[in-house]
Amino acid sequence: MSKTRIADLRITPIAFADPPLLNNAGCHEPFALRSIIEVETEGGVVGLGESYGHKALLDALTALAPQVVGMEVTDLNGLWRRARAVVRGAMQGYTGAEALLPRVVAAVEVAMWDAWGKSLGRPLVDLLGGQVRDRVSFSAYLFYKFARHAGASQDDIWGEVLTPEQLVDEARRMVDEHGFRALKLKAGILPPEDEIAGLEALRAAFPTAPLRIDPNGGWHLHTTLKLLPRLEGLIEYLEDPTDGIPAMSVVQRATTIPLATNMCVVANDHLPPAIAEGAVRVILSDHHYWGGLQASRDLARICDIWGIGLSMHSNSHLGISLAAMAHLAAATPNLAYDCDTHYPWQTDEVIEGGKLRFEGGALTLPEGPGLGVTLDRGELRRLHQNYLDAGLAVRDDAKEMRKHWPDWKFGRPKF
Amino acid sequence: MSKTRIADLRITPIAFADPPLLNNAGCHEPFALRSIIEVETEGGVVGLGESYGHKALLDALTALAPQVVGMEVTDLNGLWRRARAVVRGAMQGYTGAEALLPRVVAAVEVAMWDAWGKSLGRPLVDLLGGQVRDRVSFSAYLFYKFARHAGASQDDIWGEVLTPEQLVDEARRMVDEHGFRALKLKAGILPPEDEIAGLEALRAAFPTAPLRIDPNGGWHLHTTLKLLPRLEGLIEYLEDPTDGIPAMSVVQRATTIPLATNMCVVANDHLPPAIAEGAVRVILSDHHYWGGLQASRDLARICDIWGIGLSMHSNSHLGISLAAMAHLAAATPNLAYDCDTHYPWQTDEVIEGGKLRFEGGALTLPEGPGLGVTLDRGELRRLHQNYLDAGLAVRDDAKEMRKHWPDWKFGRPKF
Repeated sequence: MSKTRIADLRITPIAFADPPLLNNAGCHEPFALRSIIEVETEGGVVGLGESYGHKALLDALTALAPQVVGMEVTDLNGLWRRARAVVRGAMQGYTGAEALLPRVVAAVEVAMWDAWGKSLGRPLVDLLGGQVRDRVSFSAYLFYKFARHAGASQDDIWGEVLTPEQLVDEARRMVDEHGFRALKLKAGILPPEDEIAGLEALRAAFPTAPLRIDPNGGWHLHTTLKLLPRLEGLIEYLEDPTDGIPAMSVVQRATTIPLATNMCVVANDHLPPAIAEGAVRVILSDHHYWGGLQASRDLARICDIWGIGLSMHSNSHLGISLAAMAHLAAATPNLAYDCDTHYPWQTDEVIEGGKLRFEGGALTLPEGPGLGVTLDRGELRRLHQNYLDAGLAVRDDAKEMRKHWPDWKFGRPKF
Repeated sequence: MSKTRIADLRITPIAFADPPLLNNAGCHEPFALRSIIEVETEGGVVGLGESYGHKALLDALTALAPQVVGMEVTDLNGLWRRARAVVRGAMQGYTGAEALLPRVVAAVEVAMWDAWGKSLGRPLVDLLGGQVRDRVSFSAYLFYKFARHAGASQDDIWGEVLTPEQLVDEARRMVDEHGFRALKLKAGILPPEDEIAGLEALRAAFPTAPLRIDPNGGWHLHTTLKLLPRLEGLIEYLEDPTDGIPAMSVVQRATTIPLATNMCVVANDHLPPAIAEGAVRVILSDHHYWGGLQASRDLARICDIWGIGLSMHSNSHLGISLAAMAHLAAATPNLAYDCDTHYPWQTDEVIEGGKLRFEGGALTLPEGPGLGVTLDRGELRRLHQNYLDAGLAVRDDAKEMRKHWPDWKFGRPKF
């Protein structure tokens, strides 16, 4: 019985509670969809992964599952080959099937790495090139938000955040609870001047905190150019003010502020044009969509070679993703910025021992082999039941937004 | 006693017999210098590496040796950190100290990978992402050469190769003995028209063999441009006809023949300008100078992402290097060309069982964990004695060349 040969791949969709956070695409729904991946080897080692929970990914992972049985957990090339066949076969009809490929690989790849680490009794960071930092720093991810979900009977613990004062209160609470140093504002919701007023209030309240703003491509090119003087000297980077490599290139040439992205450079194919055009100076990596931990190491090397800063992106996620992000970050020498994480916004958890804790804004790697986390099967069952009860197949922030602001329309750019 | 914690790093310089092969820099000396690296872990596992044998590298490795004791064999980041400190410290005075860094890392890194594989009982290819090909194809590396070394009492078994007819005989022998499919001609020695006549003779004798020519930057830009019509349709790629990214860019824009290089893109820093200028369409990787197997995987990914072909370079080498090249190649999906190797020119060997054998121009990975090769300590002692007896500290092909052609002068470009 080989401890490293795959016997089973299980995918469990879950839904976990999410506050009504705002972004350029609308409002977070009461439940965020996610998937928990288990790679079990013949020897009974179980490696864990966590990924998106939308139907296309679940379908692709389900189609892939029988294909990986018998594969070694170290066979990353074999995983890509099988995933490519599934995406070009079973998933061919889906819109955006090619974009699925790195997501499918990533979901399984992390679980394979975890199984590899657990089979060896070695922490994952050791297998990713070795630990370069004891603590992985994260940023406070600040959101405008509604006080409660539509139809809810009472405000959530964060309350409404739509004004600079409310934003500073939110930041103070995040910093007090978790010790974050850098502050990132999700923007593209209110008129840009109001959002920059929010940033300026944060600057006044936190004089030395590195600040970032991320309008998610919500600003017109000409709006962005007009706003640059107010942002110069205020922020450490400007993330996706406007959408697309050509427009970002125009902005980057007009400012000394580094432009960052997790929108116009989100796959290998985007690197050559973005680099040729000098579109960005910081790339936010995300192993969930770049194709996993090895692909994220590749991206880190490319950033290092081309002198591009490296930061880390997140979507709403639980502890398995956080552990994977932390191991990757701990093994990445040129990670230059505190990583994003939605984690403090989540109250649910699927790992034993409950939520991981930040100390001084940083995470120490969970102890133990592989990712250092194990599955709480009771919580997994509960969150899977949530998924079945929620009856959602895809995320729809726009629909949710209109429950609060009926006239709201999606626009990218919008302002 | 950890099987994976480094207890000792040993470096043994060797000298092995080398025929009088010609290149743009002169003639191979009777002995080629090389180093054999052993990483021994606390648990007694011995990982092997093979690298260059010039004094600067030996000095750097000697300075590094005590620094890696206690390090895990998986700690690639730790190796880079320690090697950087040595190169910036002990080696600071040396000309080209920075260029040493990836060479120092590579020498030790391969031995660390081998120790890791041997400690796990797993072939190295499994740890490099998984095997994508059973057999690794190599090319016939054809050289102009003298019949014997200066002062030797009789011709070597290959005899003189300076005419098209002699070149075809050499190629036929290489192909008959090893089954190579692609033929590579080391050029930059004779007038270019004569070397192209050699290529044309090879084409006539081997109608379907992919051909390559490598003048090592020995041709002027205007000579190269003038020769392109004779080369179009004749060769699969043109390797370093002229030297430097700017000149190569001019040539690449003037031809549909892919330009290849192991001269103008030999380090990470060369990638951004070479890609920006479109200087080459094929890069010859070489783990010995790119920083090891992981760095070579990174280079392969970069080539894949930018649509650049990937081939593999060699210097004179023995079986440890060949095994490492083969494992790397077997795990590299986008390796598109048969790899270079000087191996058939070498009669000495340091691995047990003697020379590895090509079948049909290809190598099957040596069986066993790690690289699949072990050290023949008797041969190591003999070749180390050769090194001591030879009294050489650096390679000097120009000096050797003048023993045959007293008026010969180095020129790059020369023709």
